[in-house]
Amino acid sequence: MDFGAGSDVPTISADESALLSQRYGPLAQAVRELIDATIRTEADDTTIREVTTAVRQMTGRLRAGILSDSPGMRYVVNGRPLAWGNAVIGLRNPIAPPLVIHHGENGHCWSDFHLGAAYEGPPSLVHGGVSALVLDHLLGEAASDGLTKPLFTGTITVKYLRGTPLGPLRAEASVYRRERIKTYARGHISDAAGITVEAEGVFIMPAWARDGLD
Amino acid sequence: MDFGAGSDVPTISADESALLSQRYGPLAQAVRELIDATIRTEADDTTIREVTTAVRQMTGRLRAGILSDSPGMRYVVNGRPLAWGNAVIGLRNPIAPPLVIHHGENGHCWSDFHLGAAYEGPPSLVHGGVSALVLDHLLGEAASDGLTKPLFTGTITVKYLRGTPLGPLRAEASVYRRERIKTYARGHISDAAGITVEAEGVFIMPAWARDGLD
Repeated sequence: MDFGAGSDVPTISADESALLSQRYGPLAQAVRELIDATIRTEADDTTIREVTTAVRQMTGRLRAGILSDSPGMRYVVNGRPLAWGNAVIGLRNPIAPPLVIHHGENGHCWSDFHLGAAYEGPPSLVHGGVSALVLDHLLGEAASDGLTKPLFTGTITVKYLRGTPLGPLRAEASVYRRERIKTYARGHISDAAGITVEAEGVFIMPAWARDGLD
Repeated sequence: MDFGAGSDVPTISADESALLSQRYGPLAQAVRELIDATIRTEADDTTIREVTTAVRQMTGRLRAGILSDSPGMRYVVNGRPLAWGNAVIGLRNPIAPPLVIHHGENGHCWSDFHLGAAYEGPPSLVHGGVSALVLDHLLGEAASDGLTKPLFTGTITVKYLRGTPLGPLRAEASVYRRERIKTYARGHISDAAGITVEAEGVFIMPAWARDGLD
């Protein structure tokens, strides 16, 4: 994972960001609910066929104009990239739960979130790989101080203590060691009964960002 | 990750499975395309508002009848669970690419797949956590001989060699060691230029499945 917005990303104001969120956020949220219904519905064949046709029409309308390759980190707000398209935190990405990440001191960060049927592996449990996805992201946020520093993931190790139930969850991460070009972070996911999955990882500063380090 | 269908999952024929795929597959595929368009559209406000309203109506139609908690591993076909809702391979889960996994000898498995804008982390690259999600699943498939053995993931380590580009990719995994209750698997993701991410993991047989082992 390569964090850091890069110098070519324009900065916008918090007000502009809020306007763009109001423009695009509700559609992505509506699609998240459609995803859940698509997985869980037991509607009859006719309904499913008609909804499928309608969904294709909606896709056609959204595709009628210009399509960006990806919304990527298109803007920076308050020093952090918006990361609209991101698979974990992207406001515009219906695949992202999305996680809203809070930042404390020295890279410590946390998020309270809910995972529904779309994130299932074994019956009623979160897919182990989804836990890895969430923890990769949280550790990266911690190591990069909220995506403000350029870093890529070197290695991440994820240890499963027990199954993680679908429903309300918390993830946390923090930095426990910094060297010249390496930052070490660890974190976990927990439910109401305690920790279910732990992770630790090392994040590496890319060569182009090492100028000025002695 | 807990693999294995359990004894209460009914077996259906390949013909029945094909009928159910025809019933539910096109809707999930249409929603996958809607997800991509939702992320990438630059349509005007009016279009986005109208599409949002229409999407909510479609969700309402799908939710009008009975909703299952999750489609889970509802049926077994040819000895393997259908895993319709699964976040990586689920036919009915629009979040799943979905991966179609091929099985060879002794747990070896592979999949050719395509990751689009919905799986993005850094601009034009796959989110590192999505690579972890895919590899967690592939290693689990290898260790469990295609989800036919009950196993849960103990630990998985993912090593990032370079950024993985969005687009056509391949993932492979195989078992390299089996002990009494532990199975060790490793695998990788590659693009046309070679391997981008490697993983290894240990998978553990749950206590209830150890009867008969000496």
